[in-house]
Amino acid sequence: MPSKFELNILGCGSATASLRHFPSCQVLNIRDNLFMIDCGEGAQLQLRKMSLKYARLGHIFISHLHGDHCFGLPGLVSTMALLGKTGEITIHTFDEGRQIFGEILGFFCRELPFNVRFNVVSPTDRQTIYEDDAITVESFPLFHRVPTVGFLFAEKPKPRHIRGDMAKYHAVPHYMMNDLRMGADFTAADGTVIPNEALTTAADPCVSYAYCSDTVRSRRVAEAVAGVDWLYHEATYDASLSQKARARGHSTSADAARIALEAGAKHLILGHFSKRYIDTAPLVAEARAIFPSTIAAEECLTIDLTTPPRL
Amino acid sequence: MPSKFELNILGCGSATASLRHFPSCQVLNIRDNLFMIDCGEGAQLQLRKMSLKYARLGHIFISHLHGDHCFGLPGLVSTMALLGKTGEITIHTFDEGRQIFGEILGFFCRELPFNVRFNVVSPTDRQTIYEDDAITVESFPLFHRVPTVGFLFAEKPKPRHIRGDMAKYHAVPHYMMNDLRMGADFTAADGTVIPNEALTTAADPCVSYAYCSDTVRSRRVAEAVAGVDWLYHEATYDASLSQKARARGHSTSADAARIALEAGAKHLILGHFSKRYIDTAPLVAEARAIFPSTIAAEECLTIDLTTPPRL
Repeated sequence: MPSKFELNILGCGSATASLRHFPSCQVLNIRDNLFMIDCGEGAQLQLRKMSLKYARLGHIFISHLHGDHCFGLPGLVSTMALLGKTGEITIHTFDEGRQIFGEILGFFCRELPFNVRFNVVSPTDRQTIYEDDAITVESFPLFHRVPTVGFLFAEKPKPRHIRGDMAKYHAVPHYMMNDLRMGADFTAADGTVIPNEALTTAADPCVSYAYCSDTVRSRRVAEAVAGVDWLYHEATYDASLSQKARARGHSTSADAARIALEAGAKHLILGHFSKRYIDTAPLVAEARAIFPSTIAAEECLTIDLTTPPRL
Repeated sequence: MPSKFELNILGCGSATASLRHFPSCQVLNIRDNLFMIDCGEGAQLQLRKMSLKYARLGHIFISHLHGDHCFGLPGLVSTMALLGKTGEITIHTFDEGRQIFGEILGFFCRELPFNVRFNVVSPTDRQTIYEDDAITVESFPLFHRVPTVGFLFAEKPKPRHIRGDMAKYHAVPHYMMNDLRMGADFTAADGTVIPNEALTTAADPCVSYAYCSDTVRSRRVAEAVAGVDWLYHEATYDASLSQKARARGHSTSADAARIALEAGAKHLILGHFSKRYIDTAPLVAEARAIFPSTIAAEECLTIDLTTPPRL
């Protein structure tokens, strides 16, 4: 049973707000730890709608300092305070973001029952910005009108599974089990080496997820997310508007698909839709012509990233 | 036909956000000029839902600097910029509000296609903070945990209506018509004084509206809004929670009703409801026991303030 790795879409609209979408916000649920990516206005409302637990939210990653990606932050922090959240939350953003949100939270959110820490992210260099036992998170440059980064969440290698019957048969002692999970062979009492593959089955596959918004299409983005399992790439516009997209620092559905193809991704999620599209199906169709395993983000959608999408 | 004076409720929940309510925001439509009172998170979404035109919004009045009354401001200003609003918008707030929002807008909303002006409001003194041909707006102190003011919108006296038949009969010249509307008598050619009441009918009644949130119950609030037609008064809690209300700087339904009664208001609107109340009817009932002409605010409700409420 693979460990939980779910993507919750709270908002996938673009800057020009509409009744159709909320501005950008997602929450990754990795083994019940919640990681928020971008925090547009209304994020706290959507978090509540999707019954995601504030108490489990430890990290907020901000891609860039356009308002539609971060105006939800003060309200979210305030509400978590009112609800008595404890512990710590880390906001990963540029130094400018640390300064402005430091001021905003300092003014509006005094005497918080939890600690707010800022982790300064480089807008220009690829970095590992977070790591725990289960995952690493890297940031890497995107190409928009203002400094912007994408985020790559990758599970660390997982332990192999013990074949209980074989372990019993070969009388593997209990204290050797972790070594077996890590891939070690077992030397029996009589000196016979039992290969690991006889005693274990393959580890659950690791999942990786990359968030790329906002950005023009760029080879460097494909390189940064090479081999990723799931790619979220902005598709503000349909394929006919590639000039407008580039002029505005955005991508089209076709751009997103080309990046997914070039990166060798397994699956593509389109998002950051312009408000002109009531129906995102045409954008999905355009992307699928280039990269078949494409779906559209949608508010309140939860995607299980451990299994292929339903197309 | 009375001139338009409508109240649009965009949000009437309290600080602890819920799926039931949006945080505080209202828009008065006075002869198609829009005046926003408070601007909680999600205000721009609700504005759009209610099809209120950004182009007509000229003034935003902020009662106090708790986040649930103003976190919607940056998003609203940003969106109005993206939609190409021109002209000017004035934000009426304390000097601290001017400073913090000046910084926020200066960071996030550069190169606006319209001017943002701050009008500094005193937290302690009653003032006329806005005036035009049709209305005056006064601010007056409320009594909350932080400096807070209420707002009183009052139409200026209106012109009387010319009785066309009588004016013709007495050969009132055209250039005298405005004086008649202002209440002047008419002296005929032969020296006879025709009293104004013979030549005109009563002006349309003037409407006044007061917004009181957030606040404890206070005689000084009743005095400040004495004789108002419509009173919006926070009723965060039901009558059984008066101690809690006072401790938190808030009011109960019964408090709001007593203020309306003491002020000699005509009609009362309850709002700023705690999220514990899925149904606000019990709070309305409690208020009506003291002040019968009470209704509850509700998101996306438009109230015609020129006619009595439907109870």
